[in-house]
Amino acid sequence: MKIAIFGTGTVGQTLADKLAGKGHDVMIGTRDPAATRARTEKDSWGNPPISAWLTAHPGVKLGTFAEAGAHGELAFNALAGHATLAALGSAQASLADKILVDISNPLDFSKGMPPSLFIANTDSLGEQVQKALPKTKVVKALNTVNAYLMVDPGQLAGGDHSLMICGDDAGAKTSVTGLLREQFGWKDIVDLGDITNARGTEMYLALWVRLWGALKTPTFSVRVVR
Amino acid sequence: MKIAIFGTGTVGQTLADKLAGKGHDVMIGTRDPAATRARTEKDSWGNPPISAWLTAHPGVKLGTFAEAGAHGELAFNALAGHATLAALGSAQASLADKILVDISNPLDFSKGMPPSLFIANTDSLGEQVQKALPKTKVVKALNTVNAYLMVDPGQLAGGDHSLMICGDDAGAKTSVTGLLREQFGWKDIVDLGDITNARGTEMYLALWVRLWGALKTPTFSVRVVR
Repeated sequence: MKIAIFGTGTVGQTLADKLAGKGHDVMIGTRDPAATRARTEKDSWGNPPISAWLTAHPGVKLGTFAEAGAHGELAFNALAGHATLAALGSAQASLADKILVDISNPLDFSKGMPPSLFIANTDSLGEQVQKALPKTKVVKALNTVNAYLMVDPGQLAGGDHSLMICGDDAGAKTSVTGLLREQFGWKDIVDLGDITNARGTEMYLALWVRLWGALKTPTFSVRVVR
Repeated sequence: MKIAIFGTGTVGQTLADKLAGKGHDVMIGTRDPAATRARTEKDSWGNPPISAWLTAHPGVKLGTFAEAGAHGELAFNALAGHATLAALGSAQASLADKILVDISNPLDFSKGMPPSLFIANTDSLGEQVQKALPKTKVVKALNTVNAYLMVDPGQLAGGDHSLMICGDDAGAKTSVTGLLREQFGWKDIVDLGDITNARGTEMYLALWVRLWGALKTPTFSVRVVR
């Protein structure tokens, strides 16, 4: 399958590595591909530059946001929350009638740790993405676990934990649920309903960042016990 | 043990029933005890009036907020979020140097279901309670599950799910953790840290109310898988 991934950070790299390894034709979208390839400094988390990662993953393509959107039959938004709307806006036409899995969280790190949210309570970033791309089928998913668990939930408790998804298009949610099960191994996926439920999964991040602090590891998740 | 419970609703009744049944000396605090006893209409959820409940529970006392605060060696705040600060303010002196378990959530039902939060993100009701009662040791707990699970977590998956607590006083958290384990049967209690972490457990309610809608039952919880 042809897949677009917006964002060159840890989440984008982890998704691209997993999906390319499964044989998918992946293009990562970035603002300025030449500048991305020229980057030689480590990222803000101390990881190697994306240029080194691209050299190590010759099968993964790199393009502009619009090029990636045109390439993908399905797209993942793995951008930071504050970069999401501008970037996706530049790929709007190329994403018409396609499914976009929105992983972004509206995290505001400007006042230190733990971050607050720059959208919350009566709105969500997921809803803003859907409004900005009215012809795209947005499914909010994967934003409640760290990058390595997204693509390999089985590494924790044999995968015995839960993922909450939401979105307005039932068919898109069925497709994404199938992809998450088959490509990544998710077992328990809870459909919360329409895209307004992104308020719930994004506000959960306020608890997630504090559990991260208390547990001293990002390798945790929650199981919905019912 | 002498225990005060602020609030006459389902949460207050459920706590009082459980703790009185365990032999504790419980007083429920309310704004106007005579008016509470005179109430004959069902509550807004269709439950019998508190007067009928009190008749069925002759061992449970009823007093003003200040009388209940004076009675209790330890207190639970089981009031609705919007009623919390005014009510606890009237009992402030009686709660000095005591532990207050704050269960309240800043839920705003005025715009319909699901509710939003009237405090969130950069503040929390737990923090406001601690600021309003600076001499009281506030422990935020139990606000992430419904009333029946609070006092009987074992009814769901044998109690194999988690409770998050927080508060500024380590000794108070140790006492509350012991009470939750011994009186109610909680097995997995995660201490998130100081009272600012109430932002996390209160904002989780935005997800909780949506899981409630999706699962069609309030009898659910989350297990922190790590």
